[in-house]
Amino acid sequence: MGNKVHIFDTTLRDGEQVPGCKLNTSEKVNLALRLEALGVDIIEAGFPVSSPGDFQSVTAISKVIKDAVVCGLSRAVERDIEVAAEALKYAHRPRIHTGLGTSDSHIKYKFNSDRATILQWAAQCVQTARKYTDDIEFYAEDAGRTDNEFLARVIETVIKAGATVVNIPDTTGYCLPHQYGEKIAYLVNNVPNIDKAIISCHCHNDLGMATANSIAGVISGARQIECTINGLGERAGNTSLEEVVMVIRQHPDLGFKTRIDTTQLYSLSQDVSDIMRMPVQANKAIVGANAFAHSSGIHQDGFLKNASTYEIIRPDEVGAPGSKIVLTARSGRSALAFRLQQLGYQYDRNDIDFIYEQFLKVADSVKEVGEAELRQLAGFHANAFKTQAI
Amino acid sequence: MGNKVHIFDTTLRDGEQVPGCKLNTSEKVNLALRLEALGVDIIEAGFPVSSPGDFQSVTAISKVIKDAVVCGLSRAVERDIEVAAEALKYAHRPRIHTGLGTSDSHIKYKFNSDRATILQWAAQCVQTARKYTDDIEFYAEDAGRTDNEFLARVIETVIKAGATVVNIPDTTGYCLPHQYGEKIAYLVNNVPNIDKAIISCHCHNDLGMATANSIAGVISGARQIECTINGLGERAGNTSLEEVVMVIRQHPDLGFKTRIDTTQLYSLSQDVSDIMRMPVQANKAIVGANAFAHSSGIHQDGFLKNASTYEIIRPDEVGAPGSKIVLTARSGRSALAFRLQQLGYQYDRNDIDFIYEQFLKVADSVKEVGEAELRQLAGFHANAFKTQAI
Repeated sequence: MGNKVHIFDTTLRDGEQVPGCKLNTSEKVNLALRLEALGVDIIEAGFPVSSPGDFQSVTAISKVIKDAVVCGLSRAVERDIEVAAEALKYAHRPRIHTGLGTSDSHIKYKFNSDRATILQWAAQCVQTARKYTDDIEFYAEDAGRTDNEFLARVIETVIKAGATVVNIPDTTGYCLPHQYGEKIAYLVNNVPNIDKAIISCHCHNDLGMATANSIAGVISGARQIECTINGLGERAGNTSLEEVVMVIRQHPDLGFKTRIDTTQLYSLSQDVSDIMRMPVQANKAIVGANAFAHSSGIHQDGFLKNASTYEIIRPDEVGAPGSKIVLTARSGRSALAFRLQQLGYQYDRNDIDFIYEQFLKVADSVKEVGEAELRQLAGFHANAFKTQAI
Repeated sequence: MGNKVHIFDTTLRDGEQVPGCKLNTSEKVNLALRLEALGVDIIEAGFPVSSPGDFQSVTAISKVIKDAVVCGLSRAVERDIEVAAEALKYAHRPRIHTGLGTSDSHIKYKFNSDRATILQWAAQCVQTARKYTDDIEFYAEDAGRTDNEFLARVIETVIKAGATVVNIPDTTGYCLPHQYGEKIAYLVNNVPNIDKAIISCHCHNDLGMATANSIAGVISGARQIECTINGLGERAGNTSLEEVVMVIRQHPDLGFKTRIDTTQLYSLSQDVSDIMRMPVQANKAIVGANAFAHSSGIHQDGFLKNASTYEIIRPDEVGAPGSKIVLTARSGRSALAFRLQQLGYQYDRNDIDFIYEQFLKVADSVKEVGEAELRQLAGFHANAFKTQAI
């Protein structure tokens, strides 16, 4: 098992199915090209059987992508798989992603079926897909709530049937990191033919733990993470690509690597937010507007002495604009002096003490103290000392 | 060690210091009352020495809060602590929160000091604070990057000096859950007087793991989580209150409980977003606009058969509007039939097959198929069959 973690982007499938996020074919092709340039290993381009428009998009993406694997989703239904294969026929490196629910809840309520039938069905869908391509990913939907023993039997069966990647989705976003990690470890230790496939993490963020779960999965032996730009996806979304990539990069102690060019993360996040009209909140990790903003006095003072005291990622590592020192009523003297210096005003400690008193009065009455207010404060100081001199 | 996890809300301190989030005293008092009604155990009301406005707010909050502890922040500086005590003098249950950086990075770059001096300083600030109240929380800033052996000595020292809560902040949001959990476990196992204090988790979300880290801390023995509504806070924010509370609630297997009335979470999230003018992204866990929206056909079909197939939290548990079935080009027949039925149209399977073909043509050209388009589709169906009948 190598140390490379494959990044499987599903912005165009699990992301695009979100209310309001639908893209047209040309927007999808452009985004796919951006994802390839970012260094994504696999692009899930769509769910071809779902609509004629999606079929057309997967076909168009298959024609232009050269390096990355292009993947199409299908249910464990012969017609779905045929249509996915047809949409992928121009792809340099096509992958069919097929599967079905394996939890008791899905078997009973969705399929009104039983475990023996599900096992047969799982093997059949992989065999059908293998008629079209050698790169087959199987998803065990709701694996997060599937008991480990049955899940291991499903995974062994589909690898025997020809699956090369096995996807263990926490479909409902329920698992805690140690639970998800233990599930992956269980498969590594109990599926005899597991060395013939790559284990993939597909986590949802319903309880806010998709990133941590994906990393726990990789630590336990998974080598693919399914994720989306800005964490877009059903309900509370999928694992954020930018988060897992930066965790792997900032934690060399883990010993993993990805192919992602992280300097493109910020601009791609902004562009996806624009075309899908899904604003990213200011306090979003890695790509939020405030991710590199420092506003409390304690933080600003430390940051100005040495950035590493409060920043574990340099903004340029993700292509974001430089760190910001924002002035509010919680800011301190060193941040005030720094911002005044940026405007060309140099003061000694006594001057700053004087200006800081005035600054706090202004800051208590506004959200943020900007350049105009700073110039006024500098003018106020100049006048005060002129008066004293007289 | 009991199973109750204390919820320490710092929306008014770590949240309010965010660029643009500043509130006036009356807004802060209102929010504090809402937090008390929510069931928060401790309200961090501000950083009194930081500005006259913040001092006034902490004083005003201290006067109106009856049940919750009201907490004021201070650096390990005598004047800070005095001012915090003064601001808290009307509080029924006052807490002073004081401390300093303990990582090598903070000791060297922020303080230009050494470990022996930091230990003395830590003890002194707690002793100073104890002159004013018995409830003293000590923060070991950047504990996430402080080596465990020195951190244990700091914690032992401050508990001896009178600290009743010891806060272990992952200030830069760098830790992975297993690392943060191990850090808390190390303190539980290596600080001889640890039973005399409550361990608190204060995590930041720079790598998207604040929630998972806080839960890992609690599993290892912490019994207080510091968090904010919507995860507001410096940079990528703090732990989201709504996420940790719902993890604890939805995972009875962990055996923990909080006092939070979860049915107030959604409306409080909306109100904080409004007054602080910080939009919550649609795919935010628990409180995002799409947190309970189902749009892909596979999910909708399962959800309509049994909600538990794709939903681990009922919207009413957090006071959110009901689950939504949104119609897009990725939706399936069962969702279409369901939405038509809501509008009063009942169809058999053949009818739905016919309408679904037309639906997909419409859906491929718009972001979302709404009520108007559904009525048109129903009309189209009626006309088509009238024509055939003739």
